Amino acid sequence: MPDENEKRNKHAIADDIMKRLSSEIEKRGIDADTVLVGSLARGTALKNSDVDIFIRFSRNYERAKMERAGLDLGFSIFPDATPKYAEHPYISSVVSGTKVDIVPCYRIEFNTPKISSVDRTPLHTQYMKERLTGKSIEEVILTKLFLRKQGIYGSELKTEGFSGYVCELLILHFGTFYNFMEQMSRLSGRLVIRDNVKEFHSPVVIIDPVDLSRNAGAAVSNDSLSVLKTASKFFLMFPSDDYFYYDENPGTEPVKHERGTYLLALVIERPDIIDDILFPQVHLTRKKLGEFAENMELPLLNIFDHVEEKTVTVLMEFASPSLPSIEKRTGPPAGNMNVVSFIEKHMNSPDFVRGPFVENGRIVIEVRRKITQFRDIFRNNLENINFGKNLNRLKPGASILDNQEEIRKSDAYRAFLSVKSPFLSARKDFKK
Amino acid sequence: MPDENEKRNKHAIADDIMKRLSSEIEKRGIDADTVLVGSLARGTALKNSDVDIFIRFSRNYERAKMERAGLDLGFSIFPDATPKYAEHPYISSVVSGTKVDIVPCYRIEFNTPKISSVDRTPLHTQYMKERLTGKSIEEVILTKLFLRKQGIYGSELKTEGFSGYVCELLILHFGTFYNFMEQMSRLSGRLVIRDNVKEFHSPVVIIDPVDLSRNAGAAVSNDSLSVLKTASKFFLMFPSDDYFYYDENPGTEPVKHERGTYLLALVIERPDIIDDILFPQVHLTRKKLGEFAENMELPLLNIFDHVEEKTVTVLMEFASPSLPSIEKRTGPPAGNMNVVSFIEKHMNSPDFVRGPFVENGRIVIEVRRKITQFRDIFRNNLENINFGKNLNRLKPGASILDNQEEIRKSDAYRAFLSVKSPFLSARKDFKK
Repeated sequence: MPDENEKRNKHAIADDIMKRLSSEIEKRGIDADTVLVGSLARGTALKNSDVDIFIRFSRNYERAKMERAGLDLGFSIFPDATPKYAEHPYISSVVSGTKVDIVPCYRIEFNTPKISSVDRTPLHTQYMKERLTGKSIEEVILTKLFLRKQGIYGSELKTEGFSGYVCELLILHFGTFYNFMEQMSRLSGRLVIRDNVKEFHSPVVIIDPVDLSRNAGAAVSNDSLSVLKTASKFFLMFPSDDYFYYDENPGTEPVKHERGTYLLALVIERPDIIDDILFPQVHLTRKKLGEFAENMELPLLNIFDHVEEKTVTVLMEFASPSLPSIEKRTGPPAGNMNVVSFIEKHMNSPDFVRGPFVENGRIVIEVRRKITQFRDIFRNNLENINFGKNLNRLKPGASILDNQEEIRKSDAYRAFLSVKSPFLSARKDFKK
Repeated sequence: MPDENEKRNKHAIADDIMKRLSSEIEKRGIDADTVLVGSLARGTALKNSDVDIFIRFSRNYERAKMERAGLDLGFSIFPDATPKYAEHPYISSVVSGTKVDIVPCYRIEFNTPKISSVDRTPLHTQYMKERLTGKSIEEVILTKLFLRKQGIYGSELKTEGFSGYVCELLILHFGTFYNFMEQMSRLSGRLVIRDNVKEFHSPVVIIDPVDLSRNAGAAVSNDSLSVLKTASKFFLMFPSDDYFYYDENPGTEPVKHERGTYLLALVIERPDIIDDILFPQVHLTRKKLGEFAENMELPLLNIFDHVEEKTVTVLMEFASPSLPSIEKRTGPPAGNMNVVSFIEKHMNSPDFVRGPFVENGRIVIEVRRKITQFRDIFRNNLENINFGKNLNRLKPGASILDNQEEIRKSDAYRAFLSVKSPFLSARKDFKK
């Protein structure tokens, strides 16, 4: 939690920038105003949070013109800032160690059509400022700290968790962090709040009061919700402050245990794209590699992705390194006319080994399997597996590594071994 | 097909025995008569068939008395014969190379309650003698030869195929062997003949005209029916005399092909019981071993039983010899209250390795797997796998062999590699 000093400093930074922006706006005769948004404005910020200032333009401005004017205003305050590109371009800078974003948007009213999703942000701030009291602000912060510890705080596609705004909506709905815990510990199935029209089907549905057509909880994955359900049970049974202290580098040594498995690593260059574009592709790659393994009936035990500064790795762990040199081909039921062509085809093939015979009412023939090593199966099929737009382009440089010793020394493998949800923060008597 | 000479000799043997039996019956003042039954009586016998003579007793005799008198009469003809035990005891002997059975039964009428199933046999003979003409007798013999070639002739529990009587019923129903082939080549699903009450659910239902409450086709397994469906298609597409010539020792060398698999062999002493009691237990043992492998998630490719003079072997072929040293334990969904005890139990276990984490909404924890070799998994669990009454008793002497070279030299393995349904008898242009 930020101390009073940190808060005061950040507000001073924000006030100064907004004052300078307002004077530039007036000087240029632009129909716009500035507004402090985000958790700092609502008092729900965690330590080291950003300062987010929005410039709200009249809807009379055309989009291109508004975006141009927004960037110009930003540069008038931070001439050396680099522009960034989200839905609108914006500028980002650092003041005394604090990240400051200056973002242009349109001024809209509650429940009116937005032009871009950032247009809603000032409304979120306004809505929360009117409703969050001193007590509930503390409950929001507890909620955020708890979720952060569990690795499910943040709506980025990397985390697939609960955004700060969702934490605030949860406290408005449940009243206190403790009640939120109680409800979550008993929740079975989806978490749905105020979805009267039952329009949404994602694991978490929390209707955005600022735009009733929007699900503010859309980013939360089922696994993130599952972590919440589990962690809340442990918290209530063994309550502890430890649930709110977060160590970014816990430095725990992964357990070394002879696993008796076979590892393959797909390693691909990390493309220069933002996380929200990269991570869905990394997850897609992992999913598609897993599906491929399943279709080929490979004994896949674990599949794990790991993104480093320059590389994306997908680790696959198997029960064995290869398939047998024979393969059973199961034909149609014996009553089907195609059994004749099935038998003729396979018995005339140079790969025929044994059969035909009948198993469970179907014709079975054994044929030779030409490619048996999982390594080779993946290498031969990489081009048919979809990695997503940007990763697909880098596929020609991808490699399938199978040097077991090298993989076991890699950071990806170390991260894989360390995977653990900190459900049990307070249970120091547990072995781990 | 037997030649005229063989038939004439067999009838002479039968006539002589029946004459001697009748005179003994008269001498002893017993209310009974003798009757030649089976395929010899109906003219539908294949080469080297048996002579079956039944002694039909009045139902006034008590069972024990009838059985005693039946054995006595048999011994009066063949003093050195050994008694055999089926539903009633009977005697079996060999005359000039032909096996002769003398079987006591009760005299019953069509569709009256039987006392034992052998009581029906004389009625089967009577029914068929009245209906099978010269032409249809030939069609029956073709049917038997065809089914024998495919390994599905005989209703013993070893074969699970079509009995001679069923072959006769099939020809009475379909008229000719060719029409039978045509119908079978188009059959999808079960083969049902005259089951107006739809009482039976087995793959083949052929109501016995002599006892309408009986399914004469009950012994036929789904796989035997599947072989028939497939073979009939090939016969019609590529008709050939080869479908009727049967070589008991085809002597084909099995294909030697590096299979890249791991073999286990369960070897158990063959108990001194008749085939109809032994084979269901062998099949049960194979089935239960297969189910056990499936429950343990072992990568079983093939499972095959082989009965020799002194041993019963079940061969199991796997994709690999062992499981990894880690095992993923999947707990309840995160919304379930038992997740807490699941996590506590596994994390406090000395076998804990990694986790907990969430996968597809469920808690997963990795634990150490203590026994990883399939060989040891089977050895440790043999006592929990049901082999059937007689084989269970011999389980203490059973062994699980895993010397790959020795298994590959065994007769069981050789038989396994030779497995092949002779659907394609005429297709000499096929590789096999």
